[in-house]
Amino acid sequence: HDDYRSQITDFYEQSAEQVAGHLGAGKMVAVLSEGDPLFYGSYMHLHVRLSHRFPTEVIPGITAMSGCWSATGLPIVQGDDVLTVLPGTMSEFE
Amino acid sequence: HDDYRSQITDFYEQSAEQVAGHLGAGKMVAVLSEGDPLFYGSYMHLHVRLSHRFPTEVIPGITAMSGCWSATGLPIVQGDDVLTVLPGTMSEFE
Repeated sequence: HDDYRSQITDFYEQSAEQVAGHLGAGKMVAVLSEGDPLFYGSYMHLHVRLSHRFPTEVIPGITAMSGCWSATGLPIVQGDDVLTVLPGTMSEFE
Repeated sequence: HDDYRSQITDFYEQSAEQVAGHLGAGKMVAVLSEGDPLFYGSYMHLHVRLSHRFPTEVIPGITAMSGCWSATGLPIVQGDDVLTVLPGTMSEFE
C-alpha cells in the first residue's frame, strides 16, 4: 500500500509537470475524467498541483453511483435521509 | 411538519394521477428536475407511483453539491475518504 502510494505520487508529479509544460507554452489543456472530477477522481491530483499556477475550470460530471441508481430507477435518498459513501477499498473493520 | 407531510403527499398523489392520465392516453411525458432526479429530487415521488405501471427512463443529473465543489474547485473526497451527506433540514441534535 505504501509502495503504491509513493509510485502513484511520483506519477502525479510527473503528469502535473508535463501538463504544466504545455500550459506554460500558452496551450490550453483539457483533462477528461470518468464520473465527477473532484469526487474520487484522479484529476484532483493535477488540480491541487496546478490550479494555483494556471487558471482552471472544473466541469462537474455524473458520478458512478448516480449512474447506477438512475439506471436501476432506485430513489436513493429523500427528505431527511442521510447518505454515507464508503469506498470499497476500506477494510471491513473500518 | 405532519401537516406539511400530508399536504405534500396529497400533492404528489394528484400530480401522479395527472401524469398517469397523459401516459394512459399514449402520450410521452418528460419531467424536468434540478440536480439528480433520484438524489433528494421530487421526481422520485412520481417515479414510485408510476414506474410499475408505465415504462420510465431516468437520466442522471449534476447534484447541487457537485455543482458547488466544482465551481469552487474543491476536491471533496479522494482515496479512502468517506463522504456523509446531511440534509440541512435535520435538527442540530440529530
